[in-house]
Amino acid sequence: MPVKIKIEKKEKHTRARLGKLTTPHGEVETPIFMPVGTQATVKTMTPEEVKETGGRLVLSNTYHLYLRPGHDLVKEAGGLHKFMNWDGPILTDSGGFQVFSLGPLRTITEEGVEFRSHIDGSKHFFTPEKVMEIEQALGADIAMAFDECAPYPCEKEYAVAALERTTRWAERCKRVHKREDQALFGIIQGGVFPDLRERSAKELLAMDFPGYGIGGLSVGEPKELMYEVLDQLMPIMPEDKPRYLMGVGSPDCLIEGVVRGVDMFDCVLPTRIARNGTVFTHNGKLTVRNAEYARDFRPMDQQCDCYACRNYSRAYIRHLIKTDEILGIRLTTIHNLHFIQHLMQNIRQAIREDRLLEYREDFLKVFNAG
Amino acid sequence: MPVKIKIEKKEKHTRARLGKLTTPHGEVETPIFMPVGTQATVKTMTPEEVKETGGRLVLSNTYHLYLRPGHDLVKEAGGLHKFMNWDGPILTDSGGFQVFSLGPLRTITEEGVEFRSHIDGSKHFFTPEKVMEIEQALGADIAMAFDECAPYPCEKEYAVAALERTTRWAERCKRVHKREDQALFGIIQGGVFPDLRERSAKELLAMDFPGYGIGGLSVGEPKELMYEVLDQLMPIMPEDKPRYLMGVGSPDCLIEGVVRGVDMFDCVLPTRIARNGTVFTHNGKLTVRNAEYARDFRPMDQQCDCYACRNYSRAYIRHLIKTDEILGIRLTTIHNLHFIQHLMQNIRQAIREDRLLEYREDFLKVFNAG
Repeated sequence: MPVKIKIEKKEKHTRARLGKLTTPHGEVETPIFMPVGTQATVKTMTPEEVKETGGRLVLSNTYHLYLRPGHDLVKEAGGLHKFMNWDGPILTDSGGFQVFSLGPLRTITEEGVEFRSHIDGSKHFFTPEKVMEIEQALGADIAMAFDECAPYPCEKEYAVAALERTTRWAERCKRVHKREDQALFGIIQGGVFPDLRERSAKELLAMDFPGYGIGGLSVGEPKELMYEVLDQLMPIMPEDKPRYLMGVGSPDCLIEGVVRGVDMFDCVLPTRIARNGTVFTHNGKLTVRNAEYARDFRPMDQQCDCYACRNYSRAYIRHLIKTDEILGIRLTTIHNLHFIQHLMQNIRQAIREDRLLEYREDFLKVFNAG
Repeated sequence: MPVKIKIEKKEKHTRARLGKLTTPHGEVETPIFMPVGTQATVKTMTPEEVKETGGRLVLSNTYHLYLRPGHDLVKEAGGLHKFMNWDGPILTDSGGFQVFSLGPLRTITEEGVEFRSHIDGSKHFFTPEKVMEIEQALGADIAMAFDECAPYPCEKEYAVAALERTTRWAERCKRVHKREDQALFGIIQGGVFPDLRERSAKELLAMDFPGYGIGGLSVGEPKELMYEVLDQLMPIMPEDKPRYLMGVGSPDCLIEGVVRGVDMFDCVLPTRIARNGTVFTHNGKLTVRNAEYARDFRPMDQQCDCYACRNYSRAYIRHLIKTDEILGIRLTTIHNLHFIQHLMQNIRQAIREDRLLEYREDFLKVFNAG
């Protein structure tokens, strides 16, 4: 098995787990946050900078790379790792979430999804088999199965159909996935319906994937609903397989996910808000591009020791962003990823010391007060 | 004197000089190319990256910093070095070239130049005294005097008036410039008229500035005309003062300038073309964003050892630029500045070994053949 998790410690008072995930490109500690490199680059950053923030495993997007530059080109380049100069592990999503998000631009059938490119309107067809071909060409350490992601809100009937199709598509993915240096993870669907989540999990667990994504959450539902789904789903998940909560990355959701037993997370949030001039600080979000920081010569977060906070003031970063200078969003991106990775480090330490609930309380009290 | 040049070697067969320029922020080797950090940042780069390419002295623009974020804010931040986190020497231009380039947006009188901001159309007035106030607030190691830059082509009568005004404004600048940790350089004008250049030089030399800019060249005139002006002007320049050819930065012009005795250069060319996807290589320019490089897995320049060429292919960089990923223009910018700084290093070595003319021939033969 190319990818497996070794649980090194279970926190005493929660379902949180501390682990090591081994992959063909090295071992990483879990719980882990994976920065998103949609188009074979974590936006604005070099691989060295991603590592400096603490990033160890990056996610890249099948849908985007299929359209540009094309998976055949990436394969010809020697695979995604070599193409983008990232020697650590990579996970590729399946494009499922992206094509379903295209709305009127796509049509779903049992065979697959026909969609039009968001770039030039050209027509394409994704089937489970096609997606496996693409992901195997890209050559990430972890490939996600092609799933149908139901929106929120949605009728139970629709959620049932989507989860059933997701199971059938997972079987088709498994049948054609051959790369031995790549793990194929299944994706659990079922919307916000506990019985459907349980059913989806059982069907996929029966196929014995080396890891499981939890999809279709963080798509607009209240956070409490997501936490409830996790509360009911996690106890039936096997101990020896990694659990990946897809698309989650706000500080509170990361902590709550870990408390409930999640090992892996990804989200564009930290990098996306950074490019809009908003950064995380220990006492909440701060929109550094706002006029109130024009003459504020303090670092973005006075408790942060990232490259940006060690060397630059809010006033300077605001100036850069206001004048469309790229260094501005480079610095906010570095800071936000550092912030999230530092949070994950603290979470892992709290698990090690069986004080995750205290850590959650302490962190959120200050973070939410800001 | 805060800034002075020590000539360490004169090349045997040309007017080229090898020197050390001392400044309040350290010593740099000349001939030197100064990358441009218009808005207190060399576009796309951190200061560490600028240094890694070999950049030792950066230029920043008075006009832009006056408008945004304002020189008073930069002063409050502790000066430009601290604001932008650059601990090496800085030179600020006077805004003369920028405001004259505004064309219909400005009106010149003996008192100064009234102009409208290119950003919001607001009205402003630059006088020599105002520009000195701004440059002293910014606190660069070298401040340029406020000059009137005549366009090309222009009537001799206009060129005479501009050079005479430049002399009077240089006197006014000198009168109010008080910062002892900052050198004020005069700027020689006179268009492409040898007698006017000589007159401008003599008038400014009489004021005994610690260094001299040669302005009003590289403004659209044929290169041969620029070389002729330098051929006639340089012999009357004092040996013990640095000579700065403003706005010049193409590889051939850098070599020709050094051959004629220039010590300092600046230009946006290498960074600007980089952002358009064009890079220098040892055998000429290459537009890496072109379709022909889509599957070219070689580095941008196979003879280059910069960070970009060591780690990334033309295909990857093209993909990044085509998909508007910032890392693409970061890599082309790093490469182009490295290329120019490497050229300057080779030029200095050739001076040291009295073989600058051979170097020029060898370099240009391959560069122009590409």
